[in-house]
Amino acid sequence: MTNCIYIVGMGPGSEKKMSFEAKDILEKMDVIIGYKVYLDLLEEEFRTKEFISTPMKKEIERCKICFEKALEGKKVAIICSGDAGIYGMASLMYEIKEQFYADSQIELRVIPGITAAISGAAELGAPLNHDFCVISLSDLLTPWEKIEKRLVAAASADFAIALYNPSSKKRSHYLKKACEIMEKYIEKSRPCGYVKNIGRDGTEICVCSFEELKEESVDMFTTVFIGNSSTKVIDKKLVTPRGYNRNE
Amino acid sequence: MTNCIYIVGMGPGSEKKMSFEAKDILEKMDVIIGYKVYLDLLEEEFRTKEFISTPMKKEIERCKICFEKALEGKKVAIICSGDAGIYGMASLMYEIKEQFYADSQIELRVIPGITAAISGAAELGAPLNHDFCVISLSDLLTPWEKIEKRLVAAASADFAIALYNPSSKKRSHYLKKACEIMEKYIEKSRPCGYVKNIGRDGTEICVCSFEELKEESVDMFTTVFIGNSSTKVIDKKLVTPRGYNRNE
Ligand SMILES: C[S@@+](CC[C@H](N)C(=O)[O-])C[C@H]1O[C@@H](n2cnc3c(N)ncnc32)[C@H](O)[C@@H]1O
Ligand SMILES: C[S@@+](CC[C@H](N)C(=O)[O-])C[C@H]1O[C@@H](n2cnc3c(N)ncnc32)[C@H](O)[C@@H]1O
Repeated sequence: MTNCIYIVGMGPGSEKKMSFEAKDILEKMDVIIGYKVYLDLLEEEFRTKEFISTPMKKEIERCKICFEKALEGKKVAIICSGDAGIYGMASLMYEIKEQFYADSQIELRVIPGITAAISGAAELGAPLNHDFCVISLSDLLTPWEKIEKRLVAAASADFAIALYNPSSKKRSHYLKKACEIMEKYIEKSRPCGYVKNIGRDGTEICVCSFEELKEESVDMFTTVFIGNSSTKVIDKKLVTPRGYNRNE
Repeated sequence: MTNCIYIVGMGPGSEKKMSFEAKDILEKMDVIIGYKVYLDLLEEEFRTKEFISTPMKKEIERCKICFEKALEGKKVAIICSGDAGIYGMASLMYEIKEQFYADSQIELRVIPGITAAISGAAELGAPLNHDFCVISLSDLLTPWEKIEKRLVAAASADFAIALYNPSSKKRSHYLKKACEIMEKYIEKSRPCGYVKNIGRDGTEICVCSFEELKEESVDMFTTVFIGNSSTKVIDKKLVTPRGYNRNE
């Protein structure tokens, strides 16, 4: 018997931003696995399911539980906030399958969700409405030199930029550090912004200059946006033009 | 009276990938404006609404119709495929407001949707599961030198890459041209892929090497993916590891 594990992106928090497909699939599951915070958002709706949460930093274990439950014949979904393929569990699920369950015939299917760059951009207006880069400032899994190189590449080639994981308790100065690396390429007045707690209680939106951004204190539930050289502030919103207006 | 125009991302095609929020809003509208293709997808569901389509290349006109209808007191939404803030109409709506309707008190609100990079990535596995760039190959609104510079920056800093607008009738060789620019930085065997008609009839998925990608014929309904230096093929899927496995 082939069984399928669904790797589901829930969107940025509130159920409103989940897709119909994601919800349909969760409704059909026996077991839903994920971080406790996300499960709590779902538990009220789906009271009859088995919910399994594992702590942060136990990602491999969490993936294995999915496969074990699926091998028992259960219908299993693993959930991530935003999209499961953007700094989410999707790739690890494939790796764990290859390493430990290669013979299992279990199929993996990724169900896309609205990632923080997209939902945060919508709150701010349209900061990513041209070519853009998504970069995580977390050096837990990536060497800092690589992050630095990507920041320079993104800023010098005039991409709009979305930064994930801009801060944490141990890395509270990382946004400042990143801005210092990019300030050779980005003028002080460049329109920037950030959104905290997108789609959740306590949403906070800020539009500021690149110079001000450096001094902002953001937390791990924040996504940061840096405009490109054409980005403007219109109506207190960040707007990166596509260029239509140029031609007429 | 303040009126609000909604700029709504419909997701990649089928309604399944629309968010609950997007659908709720469309249900409340009097007028829905967009390209004909997208309207056709909706018309069956919302028969009682006024639908207005304008042809391609009439983007400014389409935006103005939104404001005119809103000034008549109608509830108006303008729709885009995917997300309205990713190569969509969101920024132009802000620009048109600033230029022509600055005194109008009309508010703009962007409702996020699942963009082709995210839905295409889900079909392919997890190609964007680390830092990535989104680049459009269309030089209709962007000088080609700028696109070239961004391709070099993205490839040389080892980003995973999603390419939009990889081809059109007039630009059928653009994907090849882009690959030639990046081949200095990307080895021939690098796992790549593309998805045609995501979420619509005729979905086509291909996983190939960077060398093969150059010769592929893709059309304007295709999104192309280029892995980073760690991307692997597992189970015929494109998988860009986040790095969890490295640490244990
Ligand atoms: C490990 S990543 C997970 C990203 C998630 N898979 C997604 O697609 O949105 C965590 C980072 O995503 C961003 N993020 C996730 N959810 C967010 C929210 N509701 N509001 C603001 N930022 C969020 C923050 O930058 C956070 O540090
Ligand atoms: C003008 S852009 C619009 C992007 C859209 N706003 C989004 O967020 O997906 C058009 C390009 O998006 C990509 N695209 C949009 N819809 C797609 C689909 N259903 N399947 C594959 N690619 C798609 C293709 O690369 C296409 O050339």
